[in-house]
Amino acid sequence: MMDESSKLSVLQGFPVVVQLPIQWGDLDAYGHVNNLVYLKWFEAARAVYASRVGVEVLPRQNGVGAVLASISCKYLRQLSYPGNIFSGVRVVRVSIGSITLENRIADGQTGVPVAEGTCDAVLYDYAANEPVPVPDRIRAAVEELEGKSFTL
Amino acid sequence: MMDESSKLSVLQGFPVVVQLPIQWGDLDAYGHVNNLVYLKWFEAARAVYASRVGVEVLPRQNGVGAVLASISCKYLRQLSYPGNIFSGVRVVRVSIGSITLENRIADGQTGVPVAEGTCDAVLYDYAANEPVPVPDRIRAAVEELEGKSFTL
Amino acid sequence: MMDESSKLSVLQGFPVVVQLPIQWGDLDAYGHVNNLVYLKWFEAARAVYASRVGVEVLPRQNGVGAVLASISCKYLRQLSYPGNIFSGVRVVRVSIGSITLENRIADGQTGVPVAEGTCDAVLYDYAANEPVPVPDRIRAAVEELEGKSFTL
Amino acid sequence: MMDESSKLSVLQGFPVVVQLPIQWGDLDAYGHVNNLVYLKWFEAARAVYASRVGVEVLPRQNGVGAVLASISCKYLRQLSYPGNIFSGVRVVRVSIGSITLENRIADGQTGVPVAEGTCDAVLYDYAANEPVPVPDRIRAAVEELEGKSFTL
Repeated sequence: MMDESSKLSVLQGFPVVVQLPIQWGDLDAYGHVNNLVYLKWFEAARAVYASRVGVEVLPRQNGVGAVLASISCKYLRQLSYPGNIFSGVRVVRVSIGSITLENRIADGQTGVPVAEGTCDAVLYDYAANEPVPVPDRIRAAVEELEGKSFTL
Repeated sequence: MMDESSKLSVLQGFPVVVQLPIQWGDLDAYGHVNNLVYLKWFEAARAVYASRVGVEVLPRQNGVGAVLASISCKYLRQLSYPGNIFSGVRVVRVSIGSITLENRIADGQTGVPVAEGTCDAVLYDYAANEPVPVPDRIRAAVEELEGKSFTL
Repeated sequence: MMDESSKLSVLQGFPVVVQLPIQWGDLDAYGHVNNLVYLKWFEAARAVYASRVGVEVLPRQNGVGAVLASISCKYLRQLSYPGNIFSGVRVVRVSIGSITLENRIADGQTGVPVAEGTCDAVLYDYAANEPVPVPDRIRAAVEELEGKSFTL
Repeated sequence: MMDESSKLSVLQGFPVVVQLPIQWGDLDAYGHVNNLVYLKWFEAARAVYASRVGVEVLPRQNGVGAVLASISCKYLRQLSYPGNIFSGVRVVRVSIGSITLENRIADGQTGVPVAEGTCDAVLYDYAANEPVPVPDRIRAAVEELEGKSFTL
């Protein structure tokens, strides 16, 4: 096994990285980790990111949550059981109405990337029950977390 | 509710369409159908398509199965519970080494599209344990099902 | 295939029965429908039952929802892909503080039972954020649906 | 947070314990970890246990796998996001034809038990495609792992 730092080298520049185990129930009839599970790992990292920049992940009366507008994933390697992975996510674009995120998953044993993807998220006001522009406070929190500014 | 034929008008040209119920467990913490579920509905239609063109969906010693190389989805509308959907799939491209499919999901009540996507699948020889070019018999079966030829 | 009526004979006495397809993604690494999927089918029938007797399945500010206190399942037969099932549920006991339900799943092709189970549900007041006794209106709705009374 | 040893005190006597994160996608429409997820955590611990006593978790031509005959779960506390849990499993009975396991899940933060359950597993010979008595080598491996003998 590689040491932790080199293992995560493909996830450098990703401010949020979560480590997750491959569970037996993640396998499908082919005996590999099912395609949907990679997207659940994307989601797991996204939820952590959202929490850190003030996006509500649990609906409440007030607050701004996120809704996915699109998602994509390239599968680079098949995974089997047992094992674990690192799921990283970063913001690559903040527009007036949406945020674009990039996901990357690395094998926990070898550190090689096993999947990459992107998604567009729209922010949503629960009280008003409608999409809203990216609030300044969330834009600022993203910029602080990423260490750079996202000009329009 | 619309009649069946008009309901499925957005799925015309999709040779495989499956109807699936929205289950309560498909909802996530936002109270909407979770993003991953749409992709499971894509998969459900894909598996039916695969069976119809001679791609093995259950691994055996011999036979050719399919592995996803990439997937994408645009979410057009949120869905809630209860309800049902129609998941359609068609092949839009057959290259030497992969098949590109297009997915579309329509709301079972209103017939409006709620998600669209594409994916690339690579065929896989179980006995040899490696990717293989699209076999002629599978290409022929796809062309018959789609009612057109896919020139390289 | 048997006709519908004889197919459902093992589900006679179950006032709520839902038909659900076996999806490819329901299979696990053994190539059979995963154990958890049977319980999702229990849940799917339970949610329909809940809706019919006035139990909220989508949390709102007001209203009474249900929380599972326990669940059990006997697996009678393995299922594979493709196929479909009927998931039936009935109430067998209503106490002051909980409702006991019985689940049964029949193979959609042969009509034979493939799984049986029970669960105890406690009702929950969202506004008060605490368990509540079974409200009279819900007890009455259950008794009407089941066609019998549940004396304490 | 408690120290690791006291946190796991409710899992003493469980030779296999796995730590698993609560993922956002594990939540259901009530905003709590869905009931099925607890059973997936049971399964995750069971698969580790199976691997350690020579039960195949990935079907091959030869080898002995396990099939669940029954399962039960008592839900002691609701869980929300974020968090993590410890899922422990131990064998409590080995008969000629089946093995009974006991599962317990503890909250990773507080160490309190949040669910308990049992299941019966039958061993299965892949080559012969039929259930088999518990092989001596597996019984011996279980007894070594548990540190006690299971007389019939």
